[in-house]
Amino acid sequence: MIPEIKAILKQITVQNSSTPAEKAKDYRFTKRMKSTPRSFIREILKVTQSPDVISFAGGLPNPALIDTAGIAKAARAVLARDGSKALQYATTEGDPSLREFISERYKKRLGLDIPADEILITNGSQQCLDLIGKVFIDPKDDIAIERPGYLGAIQAFSLYEPRFHAIPLGDNGPDPSVLERTVKRHRIRLMYGIPNSQNPSGITYSAQRREETAQILAGTSAIFVEDDAYGELTFSGRTLPSMRSSLPDQTILTGSFSKILAPGMRLGWISAPPPVMEKIIVAKQATDLHSNYLSQRIASQYLSENNIDAHITNIRNAYHAQCTCMLDRIRAEFPDGVRYTKPAGGMFIWITLPAGCCSMEVFESALKEHIAVLPGIPFYVDGGGTDTLRLNFSNSDEMKIRAGIQKLGSVIAALSGA
Amino acid sequence: MIPEIKAILKQITVQNSSTPAEKAKDYRFTKRMKSTPRSFIREILKVTQSPDVISFAGGLPNPALIDTAGIAKAARAVLARDGSKALQYATTEGDPSLREFISERYKKRLGLDIPADEILITNGSQQCLDLIGKVFIDPKDDIAIERPGYLGAIQAFSLYEPRFHAIPLGDNGPDPSVLERTVKRHRIRLMYGIPNSQNPSGITYSAQRREETAQILAGTSAIFVEDDAYGELTFSGRTLPSMRSSLPDQTILTGSFSKILAPGMRLGWISAPPPVMEKIIVAKQATDLHSNYLSQRIASQYLSENNIDAHITNIRNAYHAQCTCMLDRIRAEFPDGVRYTKPAGGMFIWITLPAGCCSMEVFESALKEHIAVLPGIPFYVDGGGTDTLRLNFSNSDEMKIRAGIQKLGSVIAALSGA
Repeated sequence: MIPEIKAILKQITVQNSSTPAEKAKDYRFTKRMKSTPRSFIREILKVTQSPDVISFAGGLPNPALIDTAGIAKAARAVLARDGSKALQYATTEGDPSLREFISERYKKRLGLDIPADEILITNGSQQCLDLIGKVFIDPKDDIAIERPGYLGAIQAFSLYEPRFHAIPLGDNGPDPSVLERTVKRHRIRLMYGIPNSQNPSGITYSAQRREETAQILAGTSAIFVEDDAYGELTFSGRTLPSMRSSLPDQTILTGSFSKILAPGMRLGWISAPPPVMEKIIVAKQATDLHSNYLSQRIASQYLSENNIDAHITNIRNAYHAQCTCMLDRIRAEFPDGVRYTKPAGGMFIWITLPAGCCSMEVFESALKEHIAVLPGIPFYVDGGGTDTLRLNFSNSDEMKIRAGIQKLGSVIAALSGA
Repeated sequence: MIPEIKAILKQITVQNSSTPAEKAKDYRFTKRMKSTPRSFIREILKVTQSPDVISFAGGLPNPALIDTAGIAKAARAVLARDGSKALQYATTEGDPSLREFISERYKKRLGLDIPADEILITNGSQQCLDLIGKVFIDPKDDIAIERPGYLGAIQAFSLYEPRFHAIPLGDNGPDPSVLERTVKRHRIRLMYGIPNSQNPSGITYSAQRREETAQILAGTSAIFVEDDAYGELTFSGRTLPSMRSSLPDQTILTGSFSKILAPGMRLGWISAPPPVMEKIIVAKQATDLHSNYLSQRIASQYLSENNIDAHITNIRNAYHAQCTCMLDRIRAEFPDGVRYTKPAGGMFIWITLPAGCCSMEVFESALKEHIAVLPGIPFYVDGGGTDTLRLNFSNSDEMKIRAGIQKLGSVIAALSGA
């Protein structure tokens, strides 16, 4: 048995409160740190990196789909040709050619006209959330988030001490009646959502639900923060309209190279209307001056000399196969009463356990079998979700998926008395 | 004449207030953004990158002292041997071998016992300030900073809405009587300082003043945030004790690879006692998950296969020569009544103009002569400093220093009526 399991299990029990504070009694920390949960996911990742664990817990891309050789070639070219500039300080906004690439891709993929100077390069798209918190969230401001909602966003925004309002996510997107009521009752500053292949649920908003959501928000004080980390990973290759098409002045778009290029380069971006971008730039300057310039230059070089569409198609096809395999095995191995989403893209399947079956018990029993899953609890800002699990399919090959889902099926069956 | 000058001059006039807000009237931003100045330095950098400007305004290392070939070799090795890991997600704390290097260097250079697990890798040392703000500064908390103080720290901390208390910096360090009075009157949460070759002043705290400062803070609620970005750049190679030696539980140390390796890799670090480090990790997770892992691996590889001491000695010698040249030319070219610091290391000389001579006028006139200098005003949290300038010597060769200081001498002479 893995020695860290006990430590992890102990941490889970406090993960929604402050971190263990006993030793910290001599220091006085900020109020905001009390309300910010430690990332359960990142704690779990530490254990699940052990080679004898099959992990469906993380959100890692398949390492076989990172073009290491291509990136190495691009790095050589940048450092040979322009190394001393690529290693120097650079502008806060980011590399112009990389921003230009993103601008052109928005045009091509989504028909959006977003000039390069409305795009700023961040340290992964997680940093977008921190910058948005800085610019938009005063303590006690009301903000809306999907239920279940992305844990990284809950963490990032928690530092700015908002009041969260959870909008239940159905098969077609956020519940319009709850959203409408929330917007009427509260001065919502922003709604955070992932319309394409949401994390954690795998749900994609329908075209109609996008339109309804936009109509409810139009003209209100709310910004829609559209996290599009998974938009390129739609299995069909088809993409529904961005919220920005319906809410041009009220949408902030965030994106990521982590899923299509490589997460270790920490490259994401934020796109916002000019008056908002001005504030984002000031916040970014104050936060870390600028993003890693060497990585920006390598990415830009890579994109200029490789067929990124072909590369993305490979990723889509691989994840589609892995997702299909996982769904097939779930259907075959999980007991009756388990519900699950059928993602159109992305990296995750969302499981609802049979009545009376608790995800923490599943987590614990599965980890003893060297299978890591992610209990859904931390994705709920208002409690609940104790019967839910998130399963990642992008980081496991079909052999691992078969073996892992079989064992997980037995665990769930045993715990649900099936 | 450079076309951007007018825009820059316009921006300076608002730099201590909010950014231009007229266009932003439809958006409601946070209170904290109102009190955060846009970085004058970064605006100036945009102009001064023009090749026909001699810039003493920035804080860039000499590009000739970035070992591009060595870093390229390290990048090749990392990507060839372990590319798919170096490009994957990694831990929040950072690369273990890089943290081990820092730990060993603290031991060797400063006699400090700081284990690797009390070190976290950040996106440049600027990010340390953001994380410290998150963990230690609630709105209206009292914090102390040198006068003049580092602009990047003023910006980073401003986002957390503290009350700044300025501690005047004399030739030997912060004024002990003002510090003592401030600590008695206010519950100071932290004091931020740069004991070695301070930015902007170039002043190094004497050993005695370090001890006095530590004695005043010992046992109070204050943390000393010791920014040691320039500690490796002491011309003599000798280093005075870290504040951590006298205040082990009350010191947070920050460091940077930007000055000894390359700024474009955005690698800094923060070292704090374990209870504080726990909070820093949570804040870092929420902010951007982890720092650029590819750069961390490249840096670690570079440090393992190169003689960093020899490289740092080269940098020290070069900057010492550049500093000496600038001081000589200042002595020869500037009119009487100009005062200036004589740095023991680092990158900056601090100028106090003759009575009645205004740094903004010097800035404006000098820019017309294609010489960029940095007015000292933004380094003062409580106003003042209108007769001060910061001059950077690290990013100009001796020819540029001679030509630039001569022209600057004429500008100051003309404006001061000498």
